Amino acid sequence: MCQLLGMNCNVPTDICFSFEGFCTRGGKTDDHKDGWGIAFFEGKGCRIFLDEKASVASPIAELVRCYPIHSTHVISHIRKATQGQISLENCHPFRRELWGRYWVFAHNGDLPDFQSTSMKFYNPVGTTDSEKAFCLILETLRQKFPHAKPPTKELYRTLREITHTISLKGIFNYLLSDGEDFFAHCSTKLCYIVRQAPFAAAHLIDQDLIVDFREVTNESDRVAVIATTPLTDNEIWTPIQPGELLVFHDGLPLNFPA
Amino acid sequence: MCQLLGMNCNVPTDICFSFEGFCTRGGKTDDHKDGWGIAFFEGKGCRIFLDEKASVASPIAELVRCYPIHSTHVISHIRKATQGQISLENCHPFRRELWGRYWVFAHNGDLPDFQSTSMKFYNPVGTTDSEKAFCLILETLRQKFPHAKPPTKELYRTLREITHTISLKGIFNYLLSDGEDFFAHCSTKLCYIVRQAPFAAAHLIDQDLIVDFREVTNESDRVAVIATTPLTDNEIWTPIQPGELLVFHDGLPLNFPA
Repeated sequence: MCQLLGMNCNVPTDICFSFEGFCTRGGKTDDHKDGWGIAFFEGKGCRIFLDEKASVASPIAELVRCYPIHSTHVISHIRKATQGQISLENCHPFRRELWGRYWVFAHNGDLPDFQSTSMKFYNPVGTTDSEKAFCLILETLRQKFPHAKPPTKELYRTLREITHTISLKGIFNYLLSDGEDFFAHCSTKLCYIVRQAPFAAAHLIDQDLIVDFREVTNESDRVAVIATTPLTDNEIWTPIQPGELLVFHDGLPLNFPA
Repeated sequence: MCQLLGMNCNVPTDICFSFEGFCTRGGKTDDHKDGWGIAFFEGKGCRIFLDEKASVASPIAELVRCYPIHSTHVISHIRKATQGQISLENCHPFRRELWGRYWVFAHNGDLPDFQSTSMKFYNPVGTTDSEKAFCLILETLRQKFPHAKPPTKELYRTLREITHTISLKGIFNYLLSDGEDFFAHCSTKLCYIVRQAPFAAAHLIDQDLIVDFREVTNESDRVAVIATTPLTDNEIWTPIQPGELLVFHDGLPLNFPA
């Protein structure tokens, strides 16, 4: 199994503090050491850092920890291999283009019963069930909306349907974004926290590290952090319910009818 | 205009020496300071580092210079913006998936008369003529070979045709690879060198730096380096002829009938 970390904000924010704690689980406080990756959206652009090394031993992770990249949509993943060997092409997040936008996806779980059918548009490059599921999601969205991205509500409905179908095949916690919408699906385990004014200090679980957000934020900032398990021990994280698909905009989950 | 750097080898090799010289042109010895990028293939996997900062001032370029990533297929680019603003989504190399493989593309030149038509499979995310041309190349290959990658010779023929068509619209020097084949097209300016035994020392043009390849290679190693202009001043670089499309395998250009 793997772990997920996501961030969605109303202004570009760096993820250094959360990534510091998360990264520690990639070989130190936990055994997710079969690779890692992180994707940052900057406008329509997207940069992804990937490594098949453990995140605690990766010079590229060291760069991400120390060099604050400001982004409104971030998806990160540390891997403990279940299906697919340890190799670069099997590291999450995966990326494809749809409707002239990059889509980025990372998965926590295992889909032992998932068989992908032949696809018209999207083919997996690696051998993970995760990348196959991602290709099926994009294929489904593209078949349903061939020409342009639909409004978020319509997109959400179709995504919820295909997510439900894939979820029947195993465990399917995921994060998915195109730099506009930020989707988080809980199959078994995923939680989030929204940080906004009045800000306070937060203390990491995986390292003895504190950040006082009062010193690094503006009054109007709002940041949602989504993770497999809470990253801090002095804040209240909200569990996402199994079967629930959330959409975050500007650091807040939207309210859609179930 | 921009500059290109590529490498194709028979064993995974680091590009640190060549990148050191190339990088210097991104704001120091030359004015290509509107972003840069580099893609490394490792098997079917591919990692891309991108930055809209000048390569001489980018902490990510610093990482690439200092952390030896070993790869057989590398494509790098430093940008001086002509079409498309300075932003992450306009940084080369671009990447898309075709036939279950990642394809990576970087362009030097300007295609003022190029109008891309509506595409079925591939859409540009940014606003450069380069990414549009890349999308048209992949679209053409996919329409011609819908199901699987053809043998290199057939691929080459189709690629040469579409390249010729696009070249009529402006200057179209490019590097293109899927981690198996490595294509280099010269429209106005591109050259290469093949380094193999007996190895010697090489001295960079853009920095006073020497590497003695005898100390860092094995007898059977072979490395082709392709660049807009020569990177060293004590070796003989071969100019690629305008209109010529080369395919490199294992560090050597293949011989195809014209």
